[in-house]
Amino acid sequence: MTRPPRGLGAQHDERRTEIVEALLRIVGSRGVEATSLREVADEAGVSMGRVQHYFRTKDEMLRFAFERITERSAERVGARLAVEGAEPAPRAVLRSIAVEMVPTTEAERAELRIGTAFATRALVEPALGERLRAGYRELAALVVLLLTQARDRGELVPGVDVDLEASTFFALIDGLGNHVVIGHLPAEVAVSAVDAYLGRIFS
Amino acid sequence: MTRPPRGLGAQHDERRTEIVEALLRIVGSRGVEATSLREVADEAGVSMGRVQHYFRTKDEMLRFAFERITERSAERVGARLAVEGAEPAPRAVLRSIAVEMVPTTEAERAELRIGTAFATRALVEPALGERLRAGYRELAALVVLLLTQARDRGELVPGVDVDLEASTFFALIDGLGNHVVIGHLPAEVAVSAVDAYLGRIFS
Repeated sequence: MTRPPRGLGAQHDERRTEIVEALLRIVGSRGVEATSLREVADEAGVSMGRVQHYFRTKDEMLRFAFERITERSAERVGARLAVEGAEPAPRAVLRSIAVEMVPTTEAERAELRIGTAFATRALVEPALGERLRAGYRELAALVVLLLTQARDRGELVPGVDVDLEASTFFALIDGLGNHVVIGHLPAEVAVSAVDAYLGRIFS
Repeated sequence: MTRPPRGLGAQHDERRTEIVEALLRIVGSRGVEATSLREVADEAGVSMGRVQHYFRTKDEMLRFAFERITERSAERVGARLAVEGAEPAPRAVLRSIAVEMVPTTEAERAELRIGTAFATRALVEPALGERLRAGYRELAALVVLLLTQARDRGELVPGVDVDLEASTFFALIDGLGNHVVIGHLPAEVAVSAVDAYLGRIFS
């Protein structure tokens, strides 16, 4: 089989993605710390030198993997919202983000396990911690924006403090996602909890 | 200095606690995975054989450490409630549990970091996962009990589903605690979020 010629940039991105897919498979079953660059190379079927060509350290690889997961997650939210039409209501967007945080398939659970492992490692690795906080800030800002829109459209119950409620909503969906991944809570209960919560802040 | 004679059981418990304190110091700064039984022995100033006399494996030590942290946390909640008198109101107990999940001192942050690391490891170690879920079930049952008491006392707003609200409350305080530990959220904002939430389900 011949492949069409492509730019080196696209090839480079594709190789990196293949290596990260291998990382995700290992991390999902054995945890981040049991994962070495050597094992990722074996899983991806490439040489150790090849892996190191793309990622100098394990933390660099983890940071890239975290970014891939974040992108995929945003793509899924976008795909769910596309069915809502051109201008989905703030409440629908918030619910869609919440549903995304609650894993319902094995692939989503594996991604969330990696997110959890990433967060744990970020507690002792400053560079990962900064990347994680940047991701949190982005999502928190989006939730503030959506709640502000909802308030301006007269959709929130009176007296809701948008900033405080954004922190509450974000912590709630993060906690629910964790409880589902840990196996403490069924995914459908988590989604019902989100609906009950949104039902109380939206009029 | 001479020590009063004690039973072997008490000595055994004290040694185990000393070793676990050494573990907590290391884990708080370097993470669970960077921690070996050898390093814990060095930190505790005892031999490797001594550590292995008390804990056969690292996971056994982690499980014991998790239990110590859980106990301490319950003790702090109890101490805070003692000032409320003999029969604290359900809302006061719920708030006290929530405040306990939000770390405000460096020692509390270190304990929560260990809790997070424990949860991550529990995702790939079935025995730790079972211990973690048991802890979650206990706390969830307590929250259900407190909300049921509140409802029976006529303190909840009408229409609150006690079981669903217990899942919501627990996920919320877990998420808030994580966001504080990660450095995304100031502890006082987390406590304000808890108060706003409780203000909406209590009448």
